[in-house]
Amino acid sequence: MSARVKQPVLGILGGGQLARMLALAAAPLGVKVLVVDTAADACAGQVAPLRIADWTDFAALEKFAADVDVVTFDFENVPADTAHWLAERAAVFPNPRALAVAQDRLAEKTLFRECGLQTPAFEPVDTREGLDRALATIGAPSILKTRRLGYDGKGQFRIKQLSDADAAWNALGANAHGLILEAFVPFERELSVLAVRTRDGDFRIWPLTQNWHTEGVLSLSLAPAPDVGALQSRAEALARTLAERLDYVGVFALELFVKDGQLLGNEMAPRVHNSGHWTIEGAVTSQFENHVRAVLGLPLGDTSARGFSAMFNWIGELPDATPVLSTVDGHWHDYGKQSRPGRKVGHATVCAQDANVLAERVGDIARALKREEQAAPGIGALSG
Amino acid sequence: MSARVKQPVLGILGGGQLARMLALAAAPLGVKVLVVDTAADACAGQVAPLRIADWTDFAALEKFAADVDVVTFDFENVPADTAHWLAERAAVFPNPRALAVAQDRLAEKTLFRECGLQTPAFEPVDTREGLDRALATIGAPSILKTRRLGYDGKGQFRIKQLSDADAAWNALGANAHGLILEAFVPFERELSVLAVRTRDGDFRIWPLTQNWHTEGVLSLSLAPAPDVGALQSRAEALARTLAERLDYVGVFALELFVKDGQLLGNEMAPRVHNSGHWTIEGAVTSQFENHVRAVLGLPLGDTSARGFSAMFNWIGELPDATPVLSTVDGHWHDYGKQSRPGRKVGHATVCAQDANVLAERVGDIARALKREEQAAPGIGALSG
Ligand SMILES: Nc1ncnc2c1ncn2[C@@H]1O[C@H](COP(=O)(O)OP(=O)(O)O)[C@@H](O)[C@H]1O
Ligand SMILES: Nc1ncnc2c1ncn2[C@@H]1O[C@H](COP(=O)(O)OP(=O)(O)O)[C@@H](O)[C@H]1O
Ligand SMILES: [Mg+2]
Ligand SMILES: [Mg+2]
Repeated sequence: MSARVKQPVLGILGGGQLARMLALAAAPLGVKVLVVDTAADACAGQVAPLRIADWTDFAALEKFAADVDVVTFDFENVPADTAHWLAERAAVFPNPRALAVAQDRLAEKTLFRECGLQTPAFEPVDTREGLDRALATIGAPSILKTRRLGYDGKGQFRIKQLSDADAAWNALGANAHGLILEAFVPFERELSVLAVRTRDGDFRIWPLTQNWHTEGVLSLSLAPAPDVGALQSRAEALARTLAERLDYVGVFALELFVKDGQLLGNEMAPRVHNSGHWTIEGAVTSQFENHVRAVLGLPLGDTSARGFSAMFNWIGELPDATPVLSTVDGHWHDYGKQSRPGRKVGHATVCAQDANVLAERVGDIARALKREEQAAPGIGALSG
Repeated sequence: MSARVKQPVLGILGGGQLARMLALAAAPLGVKVLVVDTAADACAGQVAPLRIADWTDFAALEKFAADVDVVTFDFENVPADTAHWLAERAAVFPNPRALAVAQDRLAEKTLFRECGLQTPAFEPVDTREGLDRALATIGAPSILKTRRLGYDGKGQFRIKQLSDADAAWNALGANAHGLILEAFVPFERELSVLAVRTRDGDFRIWPLTQNWHTEGVLSLSLAPAPDVGALQSRAEALARTLAERLDYVGVFALELFVKDGQLLGNEMAPRVHNSGHWTIEGAVTSQFENHVRAVLGLPLGDTSARGFSAMFNWIGELPDATPVLSTVDGHWHDYGKQSRPGRKVGHATVCAQDANVLAERVGDIARALKREEQAAPGIGALSG
């Protein structure tokens, strides 16, 4: 009997909770993981070997590239130069061009339109006068955003009326990477598509997820999103076009607004995404496992939902785990991070075979944790 | 906002695939894992910190006990003295007495009978004459087994006729820990109960699993075992009695024979068990997660099955993963071990909502891998 072939090694740039959950999904596939992060206490280091290096420490990255078979991302803001440099030394998925597009709100929204996905009205803004010009076109309410490096609602300023322009410029004008002004969309709801594409072009999406944000940070998700009708196949077609245009390999998320029943593209995340965490227990194959499968060249797993799922995001600090652990089909995810205001430290997913039963379970947990406000929109959508 | 409480650390004695899967289940609960094994390449070391120490290296174990909050076992044959010694320094679950009983086939079967669980006829054997005396009572066919340290059919000799006594003694007589002669049971089928009990005495079992062995090693499991009727509640009552007698905390498995529709106790495993691997995808809460919850003092998760599951065990070397990965609800588990004859190197679980669909999926995989023989009894049971 022959000794086994060497286990493949997946290198992950960034060692946060996404890398942690990727590593947990990689292990059963026999895939070893090697994580690089700039911080020694990166939480993925609890479940996989972790190297500390700066994104421009090319000596360390050279060694990293030599030690792995495939490179992927937990952190989408790895400098594009670093991604390109790595792609010359290792297989990098998603490819650096896809990463670069997703790093820039202007390039991203331009591509959305090219792919037939409408977006909120937007204008690039580079100067104070440029902001006035953009406001003359877009009007108020609108949102001024940094083109790059924004996440969890950071790098945004909400312009309620035209006279907020100075305040907006004071807040964000110093940003070196440019700005974008977007029309504020009074959307009916927010959805996300989680999609995955293999090296061979096999493409799948999970059922659409409905999301609610608090202060720009995801607070609750529901999947499958109720009553989406034809939006499911429309979102699938758009995500597929986008993926093919970028020759995208791996999982990505496309954040959408629904306005007058139509889809508008908000942004794409070139990686596994917070709104897909429910897939760990709520889908036949999780986003984490399918991402690993895709970038390693393995066949994709089924993306069907197993029933109905709700995900609570835990921001800042973890609540008591007991109510979730005591709920039937309640699942706890502690990322092993220190508490810090605004930080994503964990999530909980609750599943049920029936939407009403899910609404009850979500309600019970919310009451026990005094999180009624966080749960309310989800319960409303489940009961509506 | 306060910094989080220190994450609890679970120490695991033994670093094989069970420790590996326990570590993967511990991470989402925010539980850190520290593994000790005698081998530097123990496969749990790929997903959790691993220390190398001998089971009698008390200096290393002293440090280990100081570094963990709770100690548990991947390897049930940790010397009882070591378990006792550790229990004076850390919380050890299951307790050393339960471990000691499960380490000795004689003590184990004696306890089964005390708990009202019948067993195959058995007699202790310590000498060559003792074997003759035991054979006079038990007759042939029968099985001579070492009382201790047997696993995967090792340490057993099948006595087909009385004249095999010399061969049996030559094979096993030198064993220092004593032997046991058991009547060979022409059972209708083999079942196992996976059970879990908390520190507070909360007790649950998963649906019964049906198992098939090849050369003494588990080759296929099906869950829920078809057509068990009243055996489910009977097994539950017996497992509960046993757990209470031992003040057992954590998951254990009880291996049963069904003969004339009655349950006979074969052995118990004081740990998560190969026949419970299907619970990772096939149950609401896996045996690994509930073991971690139980020993850490957390509430138990629901043990219901999500549908029907079949588990193929991969012995010696892994087959091609593609057919499993390409099957809807097919799940791959590579333990990251080197191939070696007789070694458990991985498993695959296939699930379905319907028994007939499961039979088809199992059949497709078996044909693709030329494992028809391994799958046949399961397909028979699903279709029967
Ligand atoms: N143009 C917009 N109109 C209305 N709401 C918006 C708009 N842009 C962003 N938001 C709200 O803010 C949230 C976060 O903004 P987003 O652009 O997705 O940035 P981030 O990268 O921080 O997720 C969105 O999910 C949405 O709720
Ligand atoms: N008394 C018996 N009668 C019939 N078959 C037996 C008997 N004892 C063991 N076997 C068969 O051998 C397998 C392995 O034996 P077991 O005692 O469970 O040892 P191990 O510790 O190796 O699992 C059992 O699952 C069963 O299939
Ligand atoms: Mg967003
Ligand atoms: Mg056995």
